[in-house]
Amino acid sequence: MLTATAIAHANIAFIKYWGNRDETLRLPSNNSISMNLANLDTRTRVTFNPNLKADTLTLNQIPQAGSGLERVSDFLARVRALSGVPHFAAVHSENNFPMGAGIASSASAFAALSLAASAAAGLTLNERELSRLARTGSGSACRSIPAGFVEWQQGTGDSDSYALSIAPPDYWHLADCVAITCKAHKTTGSTEGHALASTSPLQQVRVSAAPQRVEQCRSAILNRDFAAFAEVVELDSNLMHAVMMTSTPPLLYWQAPTLNVMHAVRRWREEGTPVCYTIDAGPNVHVLTPQRYAQEIEGRLRQLSGVEDVLVAAPGGAAQILQE
Amino acid sequence: MLTATAIAHANIAFIKYWGNRDETLRLPSNNSISMNLANLDTRTRVTFNPNLKADTLTLNQIPQAGSGLERVSDFLARVRALSGVPHFAAVHSENNFPMGAGIASSASAFAALSLAASAAAGLTLNERELSRLARTGSGSACRSIPAGFVEWQQGTGDSDSYALSIAPPDYWHLADCVAITCKAHKTTGSTEGHALASTSPLQQVRVSAAPQRVEQCRSAILNRDFAAFAEVVELDSNLMHAVMMTSTPPLLYWQAPTLNVMHAVRRWREEGTPVCYTIDAGPNVHVLTPQRYAQEIEGRLRQLSGVEDVLVAAPGGAAQILQE
Repeated sequence: MLTATAIAHANIAFIKYWGNRDETLRLPSNNSISMNLANLDTRTRVTFNPNLKADTLTLNQIPQAGSGLERVSDFLARVRALSGVPHFAAVHSENNFPMGAGIASSASAFAALSLAASAAAGLTLNERELSRLARTGSGSACRSIPAGFVEWQQGTGDSDSYALSIAPPDYWHLADCVAITCKAHKTTGSTEGHALASTSPLQQVRVSAAPQRVEQCRSAILNRDFAAFAEVVELDSNLMHAVMMTSTPPLLYWQAPTLNVMHAVRRWREEGTPVCYTIDAGPNVHVLTPQRYAQEIEGRLRQLSGVEDVLVAAPGGAAQILQE
Repeated sequence: MLTATAIAHANIAFIKYWGNRDETLRLPSNNSISMNLANLDTRTRVTFNPNLKADTLTLNQIPQAGSGLERVSDFLARVRALSGVPHFAAVHSENNFPMGAGIASSASAFAALSLAASAAAGLTLNERELSRLARTGSGSACRSIPAGFVEWQQGTGDSDSYALSIAPPDYWHLADCVAITCKAHKTTGSTEGHALASTSPLQQVRVSAAPQRVEQCRSAILNRDFAAFAEVVELDSNLMHAVMMTSTPPLLYWQAPTLNVMHAVRRWREEGTPVCYTIDAGPNVHVLTPQRYAQEIEGRLRQLSGVEDVLVAAPGGAAQILQE
């Protein structure tokens, strides 16, 4: 049987990916840095089957059609081309977290799919090759392949644009307390959003100073320097949202509770608690803090107006094949 | 008696003033465009009196000391130097709107003070001279001197940095529905905020493309083209807040209700109502709409979560001397 199952974690970007140099190959405008999120997972089984007349996809047990299936099918076509396996595939994928609300479900989804599909097709890809393959499905998925704290090197083209681990999961005992402010699906998906980045007059400045922020963030992680980390992470998040809200049309992902959390986090830090925020393309707020503060921060977040739930994640490992 | 009373309106900037080329002279980094707000007024009486041992200031009948008084006293020193009147002055000033929450109280205050103090001291200044004088007290005050729709020309120095009317108040029947989201005083005043503008990596881009936005906004006003007006006004507001939130330290003036209003305004416009928002250095949202929609918009704003009050203002006239 040409089948395999893989699991991959969501990741949260500390230095953001927003905008591509090449939309088709998903070559990003700048390097980015992220942390995998243990326990926020996508689990995907892929079975290539000569009896299938088309690719099929179930997501959380619901059969998918339209653009979601099409994107997966385009991706599987790449795996067929690489492996020589000609069959269509059945894909079953499950997330254990709410989709489309700012936790990058497409990252863990395409990372798990890359690993499961390539293994099912009999390919033996190394980590860099897997990361490149995942990138072609969803840019940030390349960062969910390696373990722990990860840097996506934008590279010069397809062959050297992949993510590498810069520190293992247990290197720094950081927690991501994800304040879920709205379970509704966001209105503009990331793929369309990336294509709008270049319409903002601010994107070029964001991109041109990204190398310094990447450097500051990598150093802060390697030195476990929370104060330096907080400063660059919040600045980078604010810069991305500045680009979003000044693109044409403007993208305003923040909702009222998003701002409540941002203000609260800043107040807590001013009062002496090591804590900072970062926000992806959605209304949820990722609140980062050393693990010893995580329970306290989770409790405080739950008190805030508009916070519906809080998920707490430690640094996660690499994408893995599951033996069934 | 060396006394005079003047009234000036607050103004709302459509193309924002944020950051100075010269902090002392308050020479701005870019031209700005605004509309005076009828009925949102400061009324100020100035009396130069040989018996006074120091300048005095009452604001809404409360005697002031400290930095507020000092700023007024520095300003009066300029009027003394210009006029040769050596006496200290008693200043009584009253606003009919909440202070420091995003309605530019310093603009109407220094415009009224400029006119009252110069008249009390026997100076006869023309509109441009008055606008220059007001500018030295608070930059945006220069825009509350001329009538209606106003452009502040940044100029090359003190002598040619003043505001001019580009259209009289009745030229375009626009209304500003000010959604008051929070009556508390903001935490960072505009004067300190302006000084932080240059610490944002985005300020230079905002400033360098300002001439095009000024041109677009002026044309939209002169053509009474609401769609073109809405686009440039929201972009310019978002650009200023992008600069604010990426300065060091970051300034985040928006509160949760601010975002509720922003999202609602955008939804209403998508549904076909001509309406747009702009936000100054505070949490209130100025919602602009043709006057025939103002009552409808006021009602809708009052339904939104966190909106405490709505003030509706038509285009206002020039600063004026009051005969008492």
